[in-house]
Amino acid sequence: MHIDILTLFPEMFSGILNTSILQKAQEKEKFTYDLVNFREYTTDKHQKVDDYPYGGGAGMVLTPQPIFDAVDAKMKNTKTTPRVILMCPQGEPYTQKKAEELAQEDHLIFICGHYEGYDERIRKHLVTDEISIGDYVLTGGELGAMVVIDSVVRLLPDVLGNKASAPEDSFSTGLLEHPHYTRPANFRGMKVPNILLSGDHAKIKSWRKNQSLQRTYERRKELLQDFPLSEEEKEFLSRLEKD
Amino acid sequence: MHIDILTLFPEMFSGILNTSILQKAQEKEKFTYDLVNFREYTTDKHQKVDDYPYGGGAGMVLTPQPIFDAVDAKMKNTKTTPRVILMCPQGEPYTQKKAEELAQEDHLIFICGHYEGYDERIRKHLVTDEISIGDYVLTGGELGAMVVIDSVVRLLPDVLGNKASAPEDSFSTGLLEHPHYTRPANFRGMKVPNILLSGDHAKIKSWRKNQSLQRTYERRKELLQDFPLSEEEKEFLSRLEKD
Repeated sequence: MHIDILTLFPEMFSGILNTSILQKAQEKEKFTYDLVNFREYTTDKHQKVDDYPYGGGAGMVLTPQPIFDAVDAKMKNTKTTPRVILMCPQGEPYTQKKAEELAQEDHLIFICGHYEGYDERIRKHLVTDEISIGDYVLTGGELGAMVVIDSVVRLLPDVLGNKASAPEDSFSTGLLEHPHYTRPANFRGMKVPNILLSGDHAKIKSWRKNQSLQRTYERRKELLQDFPLSEEEKEFLSRLEKD
Repeated sequence: MHIDILTLFPEMFSGILNTSILQKAQEKEKFTYDLVNFREYTTDKHQKVDDYPYGGGAGMVLTPQPIFDAVDAKMKNTKTTPRVILMCPQGEPYTQKKAEELAQEDHLIFICGHYEGYDERIRKHLVTDEISIGDYVLTGGELGAMVVIDSVVRLLPDVLGNKASAPEDSFSTGLLEHPHYTRPANFRGMKVPNILLSGDHAKIKSWRKNQSLQRTYERRKELLQDFPLSEEEKEFLSRLEKD
């Protein structure tokens, strides 16, 4: 997979893209990236990339020209049909399902604004996907792009070792994860539940499943709507509800 | 505000924390931070910070000792009562309201795991808040902590100039933002709506409000449930619904 990132702040990315799993993915040649400062594409003689909004109002708006031209330049040298992704608060809420979908692509182009709004023509005529990572206000699209890139690249074949795969599957199974405990069995008087020390694997499995259901029920009830519950699980939940 | 960040990957942060608004906030002395590699606090002779899970299973689990001791060390030198925030998929979904709440604090401590799960005793006896930035799987808590830090620090008094404040208020108003346009009025045949060129400010205001309502209705209907609609707005939406 190749990823192009259009941003006015390319220096924000290297700490993330060259560490941990993203670094390993590059070493394994699973993904490459280019940071594109779209200011380099402006035809404005003062190097401007934004301008006042038509119709008045505070704040500046990113002009279409540098962004269209930067995307054109990235498209010209490739045989792929990239997804062009705009990071913005008005975008579709990002989910693990979307990450799995993007992980099937060969080429992603991210457009990251900063402070400014985007000229609507970018949204309408250039991008294929508008993504929001959550309902909160960030200074720019850069952190959002990094979040999407991290979540997508870790799904590419052979990127994750066994080490990294297991305890993170909260949104893969559809339930929140059960509690984990490790040594020492007694830390400052806080003890590990006896069942985990029992060696009874069937009971441990069932305890974990119930803990996972209970945590999801208590914290994120809405996730259970889409989860195919067995009869046993339904019973467990209806007992929870009574308590 | 002071922010401590406990992480095994401190090198991931500097590109973000020393750029743009976060850098300016430090220059204005509105916020300081420390990166704490909690591996430095382990009493294990091999410098280990994780161990196998009790009860079996794949993946490693962060042991309580280094994280408890690192937080203790950070608490000892301060008169504040910090919020201790665990970044994890099982946490409460992060929102702008939570950002506003955290922006009132003097001291935040973030705990970022990476690959591994957390020993449950960290969750139960050390942290005050568990936060998830969204329903997708990331390699670690670092990007989540950066997202929370960016969204909180930009809310501190005097951090944002006018430049940055206006076009980003999607989640502050409760509606998604209306479209923005800037020059040129005609870009590759794509034109700015005439109304924005009309100079009629009352009409422009009303057009923008309706666009904002329409975009929210089409993309994020659920946001309208909490929005106090005027009679005029209700009429506009019911006309939309008919079309």
